[in-house]
Amino acid sequence: MILPGTGSEGLAKRVASLLHRPVGRVEARSFPDGERYVRILDAVRGPAIVVQTTFPPQHLTELFLLLDAARRAGATTLTAVVPYLAYMRQDRVFQAGEALSAAVIAKSISALCDRVVTVDPHKPEVLKLFTVPSEAVRADGPIAQELKDRKVDVVLAPDAGAFERAASVAKLCGAAVDQLEKTRIDSQTVRMKPKTLDVAGKRVAIVDDIISTGSTMATAVGLLRQAGATTTYVVGVHGLFLANAEERLKKAGVEEILTTDTVQGPYSLVSVAGVLSEALAAKAIKTG
Amino acid sequence: MILPGTGSEGLAKRVASLLHRPVGRVEARSFPDGERYVRILDAVRGPAIVVQTTFPPQHLTELFLLLDAARRAGATTLTAVVPYLAYMRQDRVFQAGEALSAAVIAKSISALCDRVVTVDPHKPEVLKLFTVPSEAVRADGPIAQELKDRKVDVVLAPDAGAFERAASVAKLCGAAVDQLEKTRIDSQTVRMKPKTLDVAGKRVAIVDDIISTGSTMATAVGLLRQAGATTTYVVGVHGLFLANAEERLKKAGVEEILTTDTVQGPYSLVSVAGVLSEALAAKAIKTG
Repeated sequence: MILPGTGSEGLAKRVASLLHRPVGRVEARSFPDGERYVRILDAVRGPAIVVQTTFPPQHLTELFLLLDAARRAGATTLTAVVPYLAYMRQDRVFQAGEALSAAVIAKSISALCDRVVTVDPHKPEVLKLFTVPSEAVRADGPIAQELKDRKVDVVLAPDAGAFERAASVAKLCGAAVDQLEKTRIDSQTVRMKPKTLDVAGKRVAIVDDIISTGSTMATAVGLLRQAGATTTYVVGVHGLFLANAEERLKKAGVEEILTTDTVQGPYSLVSVAGVLSEALAAKAIKTG
Repeated sequence: MILPGTGSEGLAKRVASLLHRPVGRVEARSFPDGERYVRILDAVRGPAIVVQTTFPPQHLTELFLLLDAARRAGATTLTAVVPYLAYMRQDRVFQAGEALSAAVIAKSISALCDRVVTVDPHKPEVLKLFTVPSEAVRADGPIAQELKDRKVDVVLAPDAGAFERAASVAKLCGAAVDQLEKTRIDSQTVRMKPKTLDVAGKRVAIVDDIISTGSTMATAVGLLRQAGATTTYVVGVHGLFLANAEERLKKAGVEEILTTDTVQGPYSLVSVAGVLSEALAAKAIKTG
């Protein structure tokens, strides 16, 4: 049985449909004091899969309660599908005295389930912080399909850290790949341009894992247009859209914003339901 | 060292002062995506005490991160002082399929510290849900002192469940005790009055553990005034003040609202710092 949290109702239904599994009815609401209340209204027998994203981070508590409710309701093996994992950017103690937030969250989730499945975490190393088996599926495939449909010529990584993802997407959709390079001109000016490729007359997609404020993306869109790109797409696996990101990107002249449904929003045109259900089905076969 | 969370800065300082312990500097803030960031700026050597309330419930995450940071910063034994414990009213599975929220929260806190100290939980049984030693101190003493100063004649419990607390407060301040009784007159009307005592000409304090919406309290205040009480006080250990509770109580004609600093607010005239520091000092002596 698939049990949707309020952060991932659509995705949970799509996964359930692909896996031919029933969707359990879940009552989730807030008390007047702000505490969450969770109740599963259907009998759970056998394995259960809870699907709940954790952006905004308030969704974490509902994830914890839903896992607890699923276990108490009779789930034999319990999988937490957390399409976007909150707190994974604080994955090291960067300065003495800091909390290792990623570990706190990973351990809390691990204490309540048997297995964790997520999509493209900021760094794959965070999977080691879970104390139950964990895996990450990649959104490259479904993203590449959309970019292929849009006849994208060049896939651009906004920085070196994003290059591997951009290269993989580019390969899957038959486009060229490059990365943006920042050059400091003087104390006031930083110039950003593709490292090697000429984008004049090209259809370009900038691909990153997270769209936060979109400010680097917006600067890049402006520069690509100056460099003669005909059409620019901004693509993120996880679309958080903080602090007027959409407005900023539109002002910069983006043709289209694309994200997946790991965080449901108006730009969630790409679904990760397919890659998630493949991972979930493969495991079901392996574990019998 | 005492480490204050943003929910309990004042109380932490008062406890530290009574225990003659230093207050550690803590940086706590939110990222633009809503995630919390916690860093302890002082070196922690030896035992540490984190003080953080959990109303509103968003404070829970900061409590978790602060405990993790304290442990990583070198705390040898780590005590979590959680003056108001969120989620403790969902302490049973009342209906099939529910999460046992109190257990989820209690276990999460237990995983990050060596000992938990709280103040007047809604039911004392919740202490059993923690997997580390836990104890509750009582706010009866400091509350009774304030009511004595106000020459209260009668302490009133709003219902049977609150009677034991009211009786204890009454005894400590030399007042009489009674409880409100609800009588259903017809399908539309419920009459509420003190079970045995005549409140005419009396100074009356209604004492409960939590002030939420204050609606029962407000009804009681109105009825007590009709019954001739000269002055009515509304007293709660934990003041949540939901949905215009203050306005409701003032309209009903309350003389004064009193709460403790388990949840800091404008009516936190009673401090639990004394009873907390006694419990913390006693333990320090016991454990050497």
